[in-house]
Amino acid sequence: MDAIQISNVTKRYRDTLALEGISFRFEAGRIYGLLGRNGAGKSTLINIIANRIFATDGCVTIDGEPVCENDRVQEKLYCMSEADLYPAGMRVKDIFKWTGSFYGCFDLEKAHKLAEAYELNVNKKVRALSTGYKSIFKLITALCLDVPYVIFDEPVLGLDANHRELFYRLLLESYQEKPRTIIIATHLIEEVANLIEEVVIIDRGRILLQDSVERLMATGYSIAGSQADVDTYCAGEQVFGCDLLGGMKIAYLMGGVREEKLHAGLHVSAMNLQKLFVKLTEKEVSSHEA
Amino acid sequence: MDAIQISNVTKRYRDTLALEGISFRFEAGRIYGLLGRNGAGKSTLINIIANRIFATDGCVTIDGEPVCENDRVQEKLYCMSEADLYPAGMRVKDIFKWTGSFYGCFDLEKAHKLAEAYELNVNKKVRALSTGYKSIFKLITALCLDVPYVIFDEPVLGLDANHRELFYRLLLESYQEKPRTIIIATHLIEEVANLIEEVVIIDRGRILLQDSVERLMATGYSIAGSQADVDTYCAGEQVFGCDLLGGMKIAYLMGGVREEKLHAGLHVSAMNLQKLFVKLTEKEVSSHEA
Repeated sequence: MDAIQISNVTKRYRDTLALEGISFRFEAGRIYGLLGRNGAGKSTLINIIANRIFATDGCVTIDGEPVCENDRVQEKLYCMSEADLYPAGMRVKDIFKWTGSFYGCFDLEKAHKLAEAYELNVNKKVRALSTGYKSIFKLITALCLDVPYVIFDEPVLGLDANHRELFYRLLLESYQEKPRTIIIATHLIEEVANLIEEVVIIDRGRILLQDSVERLMATGYSIAGSQADVDTYCAGEQVFGCDLLGGMKIAYLMGGVREEKLHAGLHVSAMNLQKLFVKLTEKEVSSHEA
Repeated sequence: MDAIQISNVTKRYRDTLALEGISFRFEAGRIYGLLGRNGAGKSTLINIIANRIFATDGCVTIDGEPVCENDRVQEKLYCMSEADLYPAGMRVKDIFKWTGSFYGCFDLEKAHKLAEAYELNVNKKVRALSTGYKSIFKLITALCLDVPYVIFDEPVLGLDANHRELFYRLLLESYQEKPRTIIIATHLIEEVANLIEEVVIIDRGRILLQDSVERLMATGYSIAGSQADVDTYCAGEQVFGCDLLGGMKIAYLMGGVREEKLHAGLHVSAMNLQKLFVKLTEKEVSSHEA
């Protein structure tokens, strides 16, 4: 029963319903991409899992135990988020030490080595760090903790391309060394497409899709061509979005390519995870639904 | 002489030299990508152009006039940055109005239309907006101003993929309608690669590269193959970086492909702007320099 189980979780803020009775599980030992638009409910869900806020209804368990006010369970989880939960006046190296004594499984030596790789000055106070370096400091903490569940909420916000590459590489190395459950909530979908194994898409407080990246890539595709040709191909197919570009049409589909319907006027492309996400979560009704 | 001219600009903060006597110009009517690592000096330069801080040495002129304490020049420029320069207690719609009266060339109707497209509640106070919506609010302001110079400092920070796509599309539309100088400082390099015409890379306070995207794409490329084959190809060429992946080597080069040196064991790929940036600004000495 090793998993994070979300059962019928609802969260209401005054006049807003942030989560509407969602249920699903993060299985142990896999890397998840938790995707959703601005305001979809991702951070609300993460904060409920991390016991920072309470669900209005429903419950979350980790390895079968409720997360609410349960220290033994919370010690299994590290949640890196945008919010600054550390005393801003403390020096980075002191927070490393403190984290080690709280969790009892913090690799202090590795933390200092990573700080060097990222050129993070551990003598600085947290409040003196730039947005990018605040993220780096929190990433290092997450990478050096030996806990079975790690959640990253927008881990690369403000990081330059080099530091993002370094983070993705270190995360994979750390996962290969010690498999555990990793949940990454991010808006930079294409950058994590090769990293994550499972996708969970939250849209307006509900689960819109949960699937393996492998399956999505294998069955999702796009078809481009003249509007008439694309419309003919799409009839009866599972179309989830399309674009019109000066007389040309691109349709995004699931369910695998129908070879028998293809001809020279149609161009097939592989699925792009970010495009899939954008099309699935667009507010406007798509201009073509077969 | 329509341009932003940066002449020998140095900026020193106590013990840090943020900019080291840089000189170059942003020509009128083009879209620039201003790229640089965390802490490279991009925001410092932008703040000097926008007269928010002063250069220690050197000067910046817009259309031939110094930017320092010069209202007539500053009215030609709008600078959207991460810093919140608006009274946080003001409502979005009131700031739209106020911006209109300050600049005298603000399209209020368009601002409200865009707010609707982005689902930005204009009755909200700025402090009540999320990171993503703060960016959206500032983007809309920038898109509705009719000034010849617009600077975007990290415009899409915290924005979901749909909102980023919308921003890039609106920016292009606004540029096609009314060509002007647009400078985009961003870490999401691949996303703007098709948008920008010129690249300026700042590294540790100096200009590392200034070139057109077209030329970089035409002459930059990568070569993959066995380490020995790639090393042989690279001898005497302009190599700016490489990666080793389990026995295979990928080298990144400038100067155009040498057809006569190619053979079946070597695989050529087109340049990727983000990769070019990462390799040029890596701190470690690259493991292969021919």
